Amino acid sequence: LAAGDVALVESLIEPLHPADVADLIEHLEPEQLQLFLDITRHALEPETISHLDETLREEVVEQMAPAELARVVTELDSDDAVDLLEDLDDETQRQVLENLPAEERGFIEQGLTYPEDSAGRLMQRELVAVPASWDVGQTIDHLRGSADLPDDFYDLFVVDAAGKPVGSVPLSRVLRSKRGTGLNRIMDEELRLVPADTDQEAVAYLFRQYALMSAPVVDAAGRLIGVITVDDVVRVIDEEAEEDLLNIVGVGDTDFHAPVHVTAFQRVRWLVVTLVNTLIAAFVISRFEDTIGHYPALAVLMPITAAMGGNAGVQVITVTVRALATRDITPNSNVGRIVMKELAVGFMNALVFAAILGTLGGFWFGNLALGFVLGAAMIFNMVWAGFAGTTIPIVMEKLGFDPATGAGPFLTTTTDCLGFFAFLGLATLFLT
Amino acid sequence: LAAGDVALVESLIEPLHPADVADLIEHLEPEQLQLFLDITRHALEPETISHLDETLREEVVEQMAPAELARVVTELDSDDAVDLLEDLDDETQRQVLENLPAEERGFIEQGLTYPEDSAGRLMQRELVAVPASWDVGQTIDHLRGSADLPDDFYDLFVVDAAGKPVGSVPLSRVLRSKRGTGLNRIMDEELRLVPADTDQEAVAYLFRQYALMSAPVVDAAGRLIGVITVDDVVRVIDEEAEEDLLNIVGVGDTDFHAPVHVTAFQRVRWLVVTLVNTLIAAFVISRFEDTIGHYPALAVLMPITAAMGGNAGVQVITVTVRALATRDITPNSNVGRIVMKELAVGFMNALVFAAILGTLGGFWFGNLALGFVLGAAMIFNMVWAGFAGTTIPIVMEKLGFDPATGAGPFLTTTTDCLGFFAFLGLATLFLT
Repeated sequence: LAAGDVALVESLIEPLHPADVADLIEHLEPEQLQLFLDITRHALEPETISHLDETLREEVVEQMAPAELARVVTELDSDDAVDLLEDLDDETQRQVLENLPAEERGFIEQGLTYPEDSAGRLMQRELVAVPASWDVGQTIDHLRGSADLPDDFYDLFVVDAAGKPVGSVPLSRVLRSKRGTGLNRIMDEELRLVPADTDQEAVAYLFRQYALMSAPVVDAAGRLIGVITVDDVVRVIDEEAEEDLLNIVGVGDTDFHAPVHVTAFQRVRWLVVTLVNTLIAAFVISRFEDTIGHYPALAVLMPITAAMGGNAGVQVITVTVRALATRDITPNSNVGRIVMKELAVGFMNALVFAAILGTLGGFWFGNLALGFVLGAAMIFNMVWAGFAGTTIPIVMEKLGFDPATGAGPFLTTTTDCLGFFAFLGLATLFLT
Repeated sequence: LAAGDVALVESLIEPLHPADVADLIEHLEPEQLQLFLDITRHALEPETISHLDETLREEVVEQMAPAELARVVTELDSDDAVDLLEDLDDETQRQVLENLPAEERGFIEQGLTYPEDSAGRLMQRELVAVPASWDVGQTIDHLRGSADLPDDFYDLFVVDAAGKPVGSVPLSRVLRSKRGTGLNRIMDEELRLVPADTDQEAVAYLFRQYALMSAPVVDAAGRLIGVITVDDVVRVIDEEAEEDLLNIVGVGDTDFHAPVHVTAFQRVRWLVVTLVNTLIAAFVISRFEDTIGHYPALAVLMPITAAMGGNAGVQVITVTVRALATRDITPNSNVGRIVMKELAVGFMNALVFAAILGTLGGFWFGNLALGFVLGAAMIFNMVWAGFAGTTIPIVMEKLGFDPATGAGPFLTTTTDCLGFFAFLGLATLFLT
C-alpha cells in the first residue's frame, strides 16, 4: 500500500482519529515508516505527533524544519506543546520558540521551567476564568462573544481581584440557572488547589480520591495560572501504575519502541543486582560444600526453601507497594497492624506448606530428619518474607525513596540467602 | 476520641469529603470501627459507604436495616447503587428493592442483569438526551425548566426519534452558541458508542485512546440507555493496572482489608504453583545427584543460571503483558518483530553476563571448564527467557486467556528446570 499512491494513503488516514494514526505509525516497519512520513508529512495532524511514543516522536520531529514544528506547536494545547518541545535539543528548541507568536511563546517558556512530572507540566494554560461579581447572563454573553477560548471546557473558574481562584462552576449549573443568578451563589467553594510544583502522582491521587473533572493550578502567590483536566490524569494514573509494575520486577523506565541496544542496556541494571544476589547466595552455599558432598540430596531440596520464601515475599511486597501508592497504608498510622497481619498470613501458609513438603521430602529420600529440616527452614523463611515484604517498602517510603524500586530484588536476596542458610545450616546440625 | 462524644465526632467528620471519611473508617482498629459506626450510622453520607473497600462495605451494610439501605440507595447515582446492591444476599436485596420508588427500582434491577465488569454496570442512567430538531434556545429552556436531571453533567446527547444517539454536544458549545443555532449544527457526530455488554477493559481503552469525557451506552437495538463518565473509568484503569501487577506476581484478586485467613487462602493458589514448580526443578536436579556428589561446587553455582534466566524472563514477560494491555502489541500484526527483538536483547545481555560469571566461576573453583559450562548454560537460559517471555503471554492472549495470570510462574518453571538441566547436563558431559 505504501508503494507510492499518495492520494490513497491520505484518503485512508483522513477519517481516522489522531490517536489511531499514531498507533498505525507505531506498528510500521522501519523502512515503511520513512516512506509513510515522506508521503504524509504535511497531512499529519499535530495531535497525531503528540500521541506518538517518545522514541518515534523524536524521530518524526527531527525530520521537521523549525518553522514547520512551530506550526505544529501552535495548534496543540499548551501542555502537549511543552511535552513536544522538552525533548528537542536546545538549539532546535530556541529556533522553534522564535517562530511562535509572543503569547504562546511565553506560555511554553514558562511551562518548560516547571520540573518534569509536576502539575505545572500537566496543566494547560487555556482556561476560562471570570470575576465573582458576574452573574450567569454576563458569563454567557462573555462566552458567546469571546473568540480566545479553549475548544471545549467543563468548568468555569471564579477568581477574585488578585487573580486567586475562589470557586468553580460546572457548566451544567450555568446552563440551568437564570440569567440574573450571581456566580457566587452557584459556585463550588471547596476547591482542590494544586500548586504548580506538585508531583503528578499527588495530582493523580487528588483526582482519583475526589472524582474531579478538572482542578485549578496556582503559582507560589496563589494566583490561577492553569487547569489540569481529567484526561491528562488518566494518562498519569496509567503511567504511575505501569512504573510500579515495571519497577517491582526490575525493568525500570522503558520505552516499548526503543531499539535493541537501548532496551538491553535498560535491563542490565537489575540483572547486575540479580548477579550480586546470586553470588551472595552462592557464597552461602559454598560454606556448606562438605555437607552437600556427603548428602547430595540437600542440593536437590535446597532450592525449594528459597523459592517458596521468595515467592511469598514478592506477593507481600507487591501488595504493600500498591497499598502505599493508594494510601491504604500510611507510614505513621497503621503500620504495626499491617506487619502483624502479614506475619500471621506468612505463618499460616508456612505451616501448611512445611507440613506437605517436609513429609514429601522425608519420604522421597527415606529420611524423616531431612523432612523436618526442610519444613523448619521453610517456616522460618516464609515468616521472614512476611516481615521483610512489609517493612522494606514501608521503610523505603519513610526514607523518601520510591518503595517499588529495588524492593523486589533486595527482598529476594534475603530470602535466597536465609533460605539456603537455614536449610543447609539445620541440615549440618542435625544430619552430621 | 471515639470514647462517647457523639457531637464532637460528628462535627469533626462533617466538613470532610465522603472519600476521606471512608479512608478514615478503613484506618480504624476493629473495635474502634464498631464504636464509630454506632455513633455515626445516621450521619454517614451514602457516598461515604460507596467509597469503602468491599470487605468493609459489606460489614457496614450488613448492620443496616433494609429501609435504611433503601434510603442510601436512592441518594446514590445508579451505578454506585448497583455496586452496593450486588454484594447483598438475595433476600436483603429483594427487601431493599421493595423499599425503592418504582423508576429507581426498574433502573437498578436492569443494572443488575448486566455482567459484572461490563459497560452496563459502569454506566449511570441519569443523562440528558435531547431531540436533534431542537436549537440551543430550546435546549437551555429545557435544562432550566426540568427538575429531574443529573447533578452535574458535561455532554448532552442528541437522539433520533427511535432513541438512538446521533451526536453529542459538549456543554461549552451550547453556552457559546446563539439561541437560534440548531443542535445538529454544533454536535459531534463521531460518537464512540459502547454496547452495554462491553468489557470494562475495552471501555477504559476507548477513553484513554480518544481522551473521552463521557460515552453513550446503547442496548442491543442501538438505543441510548446510559452514559459512562470519565471518573468511573479512572477507577477502572486503576483496577486493571493493579490486576495486571498482582496477577504477574501471582497474588490474584486481593482485598487489602480482608481478614488474615482470607488473605492467606488467596495467596495459597500461587504458592501451590511455586511448590509444583520447585518440585519439578528438584526432580531435574535429583537426576544429577551422582555428579553433584562428586563435584559439590555444582550445587554452589547451579542457582545462578536459574536465577539469571528467571529474572530476565520476568522482565520480558512484564513488558509484554503491559504492551498487550496498551495494545502496543496486537497478536496479528507485529509479533514476529517483538519476539526477534527480545531474542536479540536476551542474547546481548547473556553474552555479557556469561563472560563475567563464567570467568568468575572458573577462577573461584580453579576449573576453567566449569566456568565455560556455567557461561554456556546461562546464554542458553537467557535466550530462552527472551523467547518464552514474549511468546507465552501472546499465545495466552490469542487463546483468550488473561496473559498476566500465571504467565510469570509458568515461565519461572521453565527457566528453573532448563537452567538446572542445561548447567548440570553440560557439567556431566564435560566434567566427568
